[in-house]
Amino acid sequence: MTVGERGEHALIEWLRRHLPAPGPDVLVSIGDDAAVLRAPRNAYLVQTTDTVVDGVHVSSRLMTPEAIGRRAVAVNLSDIAAMAARPDWLLLSLVLPDHCPVAAFEALVTGAADTARAAGATIVGGNITRTSGPLVVDVTVTGHVRPRRLLRRDTARAGDELWLTGSIGGAAAGLAMLEAGDIRDAACVTRYTTPLPRLREAWAMARDGAARAAIDLSDGLADAVRQLAAASGTGARLDASALPLEPGAITWQQARGRDPVHEALHASDDYELLFAVSPKAGGRLRAARASVATPFTRIGVLTTQPALVLHRDGVDTPLPTGFEHFVSA
Amino acid sequence: MTVGERGEHALIEWLRRHLPAPGPDVLVSIGDDAAVLRAPRNAYLVQTTDTVVDGVHVSSRLMTPEAIGRRAVAVNLSDIAAMAARPDWLLLSLVLPDHCPVAAFEALVTGAADTARAAGATIVGGNITRTSGPLVVDVTVTGHVRPRRLLRRDTARAGDELWLTGSIGGAAAGLAMLEAGDIRDAACVTRYTTPLPRLREAWAMARDGAARAAIDLSDGLADAVRQLAAASGTGARLDASALPLEPGAITWQQARGRDPVHEALHASDDYELLFAVSPKAGGRLRAARASVATPFTRIGVLTTQPALVLHRDGVDTPLPTGFEHFVSA
Repeated sequence: MTVGERGEHALIEWLRRHLPAPGPDVLVSIGDDAAVLRAPRNAYLVQTTDTVVDGVHVSSRLMTPEAIGRRAVAVNLSDIAAMAARPDWLLLSLVLPDHCPVAAFEALVTGAADTARAAGATIVGGNITRTSGPLVVDVTVTGHVRPRRLLRRDTARAGDELWLTGSIGGAAAGLAMLEAGDIRDAACVTRYTTPLPRLREAWAMARDGAARAAIDLSDGLADAVRQLAAASGTGARLDASALPLEPGAITWQQARGRDPVHEALHASDDYELLFAVSPKAGGRLRAARASVATPFTRIGVLTTQPALVLHRDGVDTPLPTGFEHFVSA
Repeated sequence: MTVGERGEHALIEWLRRHLPAPGPDVLVSIGDDAAVLRAPRNAYLVQTTDTVVDGVHVSSRLMTPEAIGRRAVAVNLSDIAAMAARPDWLLLSLVLPDHCPVAAFEALVTGAADTARAAGATIVGGNITRTSGPLVVDVTVTGHVRPRRLLRRDTARAGDELWLTGSIGGAAAGLAMLEAGDIRDAACVTRYTTPLPRLREAWAMARDGAARAAIDLSDGLADAVRQLAAASGTGARLDASALPLEPGAITWQQARGRDPVHEALHASDDYELLFAVSPKAGGRLRAARASVATPFTRIGVLTTQPALVLHRDGVDTPLPTGFEHFVSA
């Protein structure tokens, strides 16, 4: 059966019955005109929205509906993580093609709800509508953060060290493997289908003030460095030899005659976090790193000179500008 | 120039420069990973999201981009009004076809921002992405309401009177006029292109407890009555002769051999509010009505009997079930 045949009311009724029950901070959940929520005290609210479109950010040919639901939520949680906030409530807005099977709808919602729950958040509302075009999943997340722990992207300073969580290049290589039908590195594919928002890592870096600023890698490392530096009024110098490339991505790109460093600089979809750390915060940084399992790598420094520079094989070259999602050419 | 040629970063930069500056409750607005907001004290948060899709809920053939932006925001404000809440912050998520002109993007955002500002709310963030399908505008609104003033849809009781703001049938007739290229009633067309969320009306009805429950008319009056009654565990009896039909809609439907009452019961897009009022709240109701210019009409009563009934020409018949947006057949 398709969602067009089932109808909106029946789909919402399924959501009401199958989504996890919200906590006591949710006074009215799915089923009224709007959700009613009790805001946490002594905290700022943090809100973000991000959209995945079938054929642009996700692919229903290559991914299961669960994976699409997971990714749609995870990319939003990554934005919440970049502010060092804790996610509380999600709104899930689904724009479904009429021919979408009801089973795919249910799997997508299950993937979204599982990812939310793993981060301590609940789906409290949303919307379902139809389209003549591709599937669109729009997620809004509201979270909270204590004022002292908020991390912004415009508060870094020249001289700060740049630290990166995890590894880069894996998700893009994983997507390329799916597209080629050649899944030779499961770690890369998992990086694409199941992005892990770096929430605990951000909380650890914000707890004792180890980080001065943060941004997530939605559109790749080069773009994130450019945006962090521009917002903070600095330049940046990256050390190519320090970049934590995902091993499977190196092999994959080299086999295709491509430069793994260049590919990883522009690879989107990894959703790692980039932190600016004061050189005086060494002790706090060590404590934060010790409290989580994820590796952190020092990849460069913010500079007084406004240029963005890549240091590689003893030579400084301009950092190539980041991939821009929207440009179709 | 098209949005695909302009690119996402340049579009966001335009938003940063042209959207009204937010108030002191907005600590971080467009330009970081997420918005950071100061929640009002002693109030619940109220959150809703609603989507318009070109060709389903709006038509770029029949409406200006400004009108699409206005409508996308207004339908969300109507959900906030139905809870008697005050809208504070909007997230605007745009899924744009590559061939969309930049001028249309700017006009759409302007229409959205104007409608938000008129309601006392600000756009604090959002997302822009591209699609191979039709334009999708997804809006999320967060507002607040004092706990005592919150109106829900599940708190009405049998014996409550049903009161409706404004008039019904106008927006659907206006859309039909646009589709026919025969704009013979400007009031009806304006009802479609510029829906007015009934915020002041809801605040007036909630201030002194005049209303016991409320719902908005997203999918028409019959559907709203069905949902209010179902959520509150009552039946309902509507008086057909009392329904406040928009005059231009009566003329339009009669000229086409259609029953204006039947059409108005199922007409979506009016975004009026339906209130359940205790028969003992007469004085408070009069005070609330006197404080706003919009007419209120008593159209029926909630009943202990679970049936939904339309009383017309001395005869009781089952209230026809509401139009369901999603069903395509």
